[in-house]
Amino acid sequence: MARIRLFIDHPLVAGQAVPLDSGQAHYLSGVMRLPPGAVIEVFNGQDGAWSARIADATKRGGSLEVLAQVAPQRDPPDLWLCFAPIKKARTDFIVEKAAEMGAARILPVQTDFTNSERIRQDRLQAHAVEAAEQCGGTFVPAVADLVSLSRLLDGWDASRRILWADEAMAGPAETLANLPRGPWAILIGPEGGFSDAERARLSGLPFVSRISLGPRILRADTAAVAALALWQAALGDWQ
Amino acid sequence: MARIRLFIDHPLVAGQAVPLDSGQAHYLSGVMRLPPGAVIEVFNGQDGAWSARIADATKRGGSLEVLAQVAPQRDPPDLWLCFAPIKKARTDFIVEKAAEMGAARILPVQTDFTNSERIRQDRLQAHAVEAAEQCGGTFVPAVADLVSLSRLLDGWDASRRILWADEAMAGPAETLANLPRGPWAILIGPEGGFSDAERARLSGLPFVSRISLGPRILRADTAAVAALALWQAALGDWQ
Repeated sequence: MARIRLFIDHPLVAGQAVPLDSGQAHYLSGVMRLPPGAVIEVFNGQDGAWSARIADATKRGGSLEVLAQVAPQRDPPDLWLCFAPIKKARTDFIVEKAAEMGAARILPVQTDFTNSERIRQDRLQAHAVEAAEQCGGTFVPAVADLVSLSRLLDGWDASRRILWADEAMAGPAETLANLPRGPWAILIGPEGGFSDAERARLSGLPFVSRISLGPRILRADTAAVAALALWQAALGDWQ
Repeated sequence: MARIRLFIDHPLVAGQAVPLDSGQAHYLSGVMRLPPGAVIEVFNGQDGAWSARIADATKRGGSLEVLAQVAPQRDPPDLWLCFAPIKKARTDFIVEKAAEMGAARILPVQTDFTNSERIRQDRLQAHAVEAAEQCGGTFVPAVADLVSLSRLLDGWDASRRILWADEAMAGPAETLANLPRGPWAILIGPEGGFSDAERARLSGLPFVSRISLGPRILRADTAAVAALALWQAALGDWQ
């Protein structure tokens, strides 16, 4: 049914051999039971999707022969997702969904009410890779290391607007269709929302626009997907 | 921090006692360690939110004394979510998200490419209750029993429009803001999409509108949240 797709961190050129790591080789031979000669799809995040033939694959490793490009590279719009990490499963989920929904970059952000003091960046990056493999994408968003919201805002490039999903909003929300195109970042708070100090700072920034996600309180993972959907439909590549 | 909220399947009237089931009583006394006299928030899905005092709570059961209404009943728009059940965790997730996002009714639908032949309706309903408890809602969407798509469409009331998230769409998508208000149902397919026969039938129905969820293939759970967000923002109560 579904094509088998692997992310290969290597240049993809017709006729060239590319190595499989032990996890990928085991997946192909041990889990999917594919023999040498079987053809799968590979991508490296910048050269589109390619067909590739299994040259050899054992528990220890293996290699593929790259055949031909089957789909062009398709990059998402210039949209970042900044979110406060929550419980492990829901943080994994946010990364998976951000990759599926077409975020270009994923930034875990430590806020005043964030419980997690650290994240496993490598594990989250692996979730982004897996989501791209599953969803037919050719792009993998980079997951950044955890950074505090105050440091992130200190170094912010004001040409990138911030879409702030503000669950404690009083006053009118922006209508997304009226907002300018260009680089954006969605900012999703932790379960307890933002602190008063954070809210005051965000409210005073000229490049921040606030949107409402309705009258019900959404979990952070729900809010992330909902905000990504609204942005993509109004300003992104869903039109 | 967060208020403790319980769904109580009982009329709520000031001064009246309402029973706790053993799970709720254990949660209050054993898990949350609340003593008799502690005040929590309760709702029954139709009478708004009420404060209530713990009269007694042990492992076996207990009761609350209802105090006063603290929030009016707030019902979601008349929106159904019809979806093809997928793997257990992702099906649970869809139900949770539908309750958070303000679906009024949740209908698991068996399609030609649905793997599950049965669902645990009681377990899914419990997930909807828990989502409402967590998210400050006063309404709990009813989860229907599994029904086949063909039977569902045979008995469909044509005054309820269907928003079909069609991942194999060729041709222009509808713009949600141009669609009429009124009762709607969102229809999300299984991982393998709809069969040709299902696609032909849906395409021929006058009350079906197709929307695009972008150029990437979304998992069914992602598609459900994204479609709910777009509908709520354009036609629902997020404006």
